[in-house]
Amino acid sequence: MTNSPDNWFSQSVEILTYNRNQRVWSIIVTLFGDLAQSPGDQISGTTLSRITEPMAIKPEAMRVALHRLRNDGWITSEKSGRASFYRLTKEGMHQSQAASPRIYTRNPAADGPWQLCIAEPGPKSARAETEKRLMVAGFKSVTTGVFLRHSDQPAPENCMVMNGSVKAVPDWLKTKFGSDSSIQSYAEMEDALDRFRAVLDTSPKPTPVQVATLRTIIVHIWRRALFSHPDLPRNFFPDAWRGEECRIKVLDTLDQLGVPSLRTLEENG
Amino acid sequence: MTNSPDNWFSQSVEILTYNRNQRVWSIIVTLFGDLAQSPGDQISGTTLSRITEPMAIKPEAMRVALHRLRNDGWITSEKSGRASFYRLTKEGMHQSQAASPRIYTRNPAADGPWQLCIAEPGPKSARAETEKRLMVAGFKSVTTGVFLRHSDQPAPENCMVMNGSVKAVPDWLKTKFGSDSSIQSYAEMEDALDRFRAVLDTSPKPTPVQVATLRTIIVHIWRRALFSHPDLPRNFFPDAWRGEECRIKVLDTLDQLGVPSLRTLEENG
Repeated sequence: MTNSPDNWFSQSVEILTYNRNQRVWSIIVTLFGDLAQSPGDQISGTTLSRITEPMAIKPEAMRVALHRLRNDGWITSEKSGRASFYRLTKEGMHQSQAASPRIYTRNPAADGPWQLCIAEPGPKSARAETEKRLMVAGFKSVTTGVFLRHSDQPAPENCMVMNGSVKAVPDWLKTKFGSDSSIQSYAEMEDALDRFRAVLDTSPKPTPVQVATLRTIIVHIWRRALFSHPDLPRNFFPDAWRGEECRIKVLDTLDQLGVPSLRTLEENG
Repeated sequence: MTNSPDNWFSQSVEILTYNRNQRVWSIIVTLFGDLAQSPGDQISGTTLSRITEPMAIKPEAMRVALHRLRNDGWITSEKSGRASFYRLTKEGMHQSQAASPRIYTRNPAADGPWQLCIAEPGPKSARAETEKRLMVAGFKSVTTGVFLRHSDQPAPENCMVMNGSVKAVPDWLKTKFGSDSSIQSYAEMEDALDRFRAVLDTSPKPTPVQVATLRTIIVHIWRRALFSHPDLPRNFFPDAWRGEECRIKVLDTLDQLGVPSLRTLEENG
């Protein structure tokens, strides 16, 4: 395969944006989380546009999304002459940093030690309240009234609590954690990553902005698939589920692309 | 308190038979389990009557109960001259011996290691089948679809299974295992045992048949209370629950009474 300087890049973007229903504000969240998560990090409106334009995001859609994220207290902006600079708020930074370990780790969730929590049976409204409380505390729902998390925390109130190791994960539970749509997402992602890697291997060196575009798309499809299911080790998912294979391929690809510095991005179009 | 040879015994029987709704066949099951559980053990009809008469069990009720137990395959009888002799069948012996460890041990159930089993959610009929299967395998029901047993056995099929230690038993679960009626049963039993012990301490030595009568009544009220709740350690029951205090008092009282041999029972009226 031969690639003209332009051709390989548009081909790569097309391969990786197989998933069409992306929200622009959500892509910007990914972009800041990947490239500008530290205190003091900021990106100009011009650079944001340069990174997102290849994804076919229109300037008007970009403006609406930035407006929404400012209103939600996720980002803040500042004028400097004719340029606008955007950065994460303290809250946006906090949320980004909370999501990062799961996105960037090469290790699947540890298989225990586990804490299993049985909530009090009762009317639906009372159960919903308990469920909310337990989800905030990091529990994953197993079935009605039954919740699981790693056991490094004290027992929650008013529940039967057991600490130990999970000896058997039945098929009905694997199918709950790794649904058919999750299996399909990862299969499509793996296919796209494989095809992209084949293109990248014969391409010229990407510019810093091209790297930023490609990283943003890859982290975004990975983040969306990852956060659509609970963070559990491989044995909690069906055989056909390719989540862990995708993890390795995503992180290898990001390593190969490298991380462009914010200064380089602003200086080189 | 002074007791005439007759008076102390009828007083004792009255104290211990506070629980009026006893089935005769069930008392006979207790009696054989306590006194004639080994291969070759047998008791004559005459002796059975002598042991049960003080409990106000009429000969006709005794005949009906023995008939029922023979039909159920629990006991068998044999004529020897004008006397009838009764003994446990192989099945009756098996069931008696299975219940004995729980009745006669001085140790509460061990607090783990536990196995918790989460059954597949589904229609009531399918769940009922699973529940039956798990109860037979020694599980106790915690809530709908959640079961607990000691962890010395392999994981049952089609369930999420966790082995470990129970870290917290909430009040709603203690109340489920140790219901108000169970709390009341044990309170009444403890009171009766205390009063009986006070009478026994100033009484003449009981005859072998008197011992058999008293043992049968005590083991019977103990067995009934014990098997009305799952075999779990103290921390699974409410504070007010006196099951473990009763265990010690029952076993101390039985030790004090001693076990009459079957030969002595047949020879001395």
